[in-house]
Amino acid sequence: MSRESLEARLRAIGAERYHDKHPFHHRLHGGDCTPDQVRAWVINRWAYQAAIPMKDAAFMSRVYDPAIRREWRSRIEDHDGGIAEGGGIRRWLKLAEAVGLDPDYVASGRGVLPATQFAVDAYIRYVRDMPLLQAVASSLTELFAPKIHERRIEGLLAHYEFANPESLSYFRKRLTEAPKDVAYGLDWVLTHADTPEKEDMACEALIFKTNVLWAQLDALWGAYVEPDRIPPGAWRPGEGLI
Amino acid sequence: MSRESLEARLRAIGAERYHDKHPFHHRLHGGDCTPDQVRAWVINRWAYQAAIPMKDAAFMSRVYDPAIRREWRSRIEDHDGGIAEGGGIRRWLKLAEAVGLDPDYVASGRGVLPATQFAVDAYIRYVRDMPLLQAVASSLTELFAPKIHERRIEGLLAHYEFANPESLSYFRKRLTEAPKDVAYGLDWVLTHADTPEKEDMACEALIFKTNVLWAQLDALWGAYVEPDRIPPGAWRPGEGLI
Repeated sequence: MSRESLEARLRAIGAERYHDKHPFHHRLHGGDCTPDQVRAWVINRWAYQAAIPMKDAAFMSRVYDPAIRREWRSRIEDHDGGIAEGGGIRRWLKLAEAVGLDPDYVASGRGVLPATQFAVDAYIRYVRDMPLLQAVASSLTELFAPKIHERRIEGLLAHYEFANPESLSYFRKRLTEAPKDVAYGLDWVLTHADTPEKEDMACEALIFKTNVLWAQLDALWGAYVEPDRIPPGAWRPGEGLI
Repeated sequence: MSRESLEARLRAIGAERYHDKHPFHHRLHGGDCTPDQVRAWVINRWAYQAAIPMKDAAFMSRVYDPAIRREWRSRIEDHDGGIAEGGGIRRWLKLAEAVGLDPDYVASGRGVLPATQFAVDAYIRYVRDMPLLQAVASSLTELFAPKIHERRIEGLLAHYEFANPESLSYFRKRLTEAPKDVAYGLDWVLTHADTPEKEDMACEALIFKTNVLWAQLDALWGAYVEPDRIPPGAWRPGEGLI
């Protein structure tokens, strides 16, 4: 009974705060972004993608139970991939190339907005420092990811020339990876949040994570949608192209 | 030239300080340990084994370069293994069973000497907090591991009934895993320690790590070789048997 009510609370947080509601995503998926706005998104979202395995490693560095580590490790494998073929991170660089960006420029992390990097680093630190329950619960935005990925694939294919199965392979792959990960994480949270206080902690962690995602799009909007607010050192249109 | 002199310095640290020189290992490999002293060693060394993937995850949580993470990840895979088959950690529990210990007792970490746990935790923190050069250099005790593993396999097989290919499979496997890991780590350190200060830092890291290993055997000796010094809460002969 309590498991169900907690799951409902977690899902309500997504319905209210997940970044599919952010106006930048409405622009992006609706075909209203300029090529440079798409590039700015690809560059900044790279900082988040690239940090996900670090975040998952930070989690594993705190887990004494090898069984949990064995389950969790597949997240790092999915993102980093093997030495030869790479993983989600390399697929993200395919997208970078498709929108006309030099993948080495993107992978260097130069040009990422400081506010984006701060949000990403806050996420790594949160997972490293907070109680394990919250470290796991903060991953549960994956509950809401398949929907946004589906909408994104559809929206990008409909509106942008760069979009094709290869350039969007990152999102396509996440459609199967994220549900596997979130099933484990959700079950873990529902099992371990066994007091009202812990339920609140789990919800706070998920809210924190929705803030991490939202703040990145706010930074993007301020710098690249509103005119002339690109901060010093951040990517400027014309830089880092192929 | 500088690469060679640094490698020589690192190897000299091993020759002077690696725990193959510790009197406990002379006893163990020479067949002079009682069954309870072997058990105490298996219980305490578990704490170290079990922490290695946490240490490696702590390292990966700090590495922005996916190529380094992809190389490093195999260390976690070697120790934790897959969900079904397990890895080095599970092979260690085979040894525990072979010496008459309940593997669940050993895996619980109960009975581990506080001084052992402190040393192990210091290693995880070191790798999480120190400059990457030192985090990598601290792994280079693997340079000296194959020799001790060979001597151990030989000594245990010669002197103890519990020793057989299955119970010693952990050490046998490390004979091929450790050289692969250390080749990468050594090359990284020799490449990145490109000033005299950094060479000193790398050597200090390796000395730190030899201390982590030595301190564990000192604790073992004080508690289980010298009479009547087992601290409160630590494993006592008769506990945790199958």
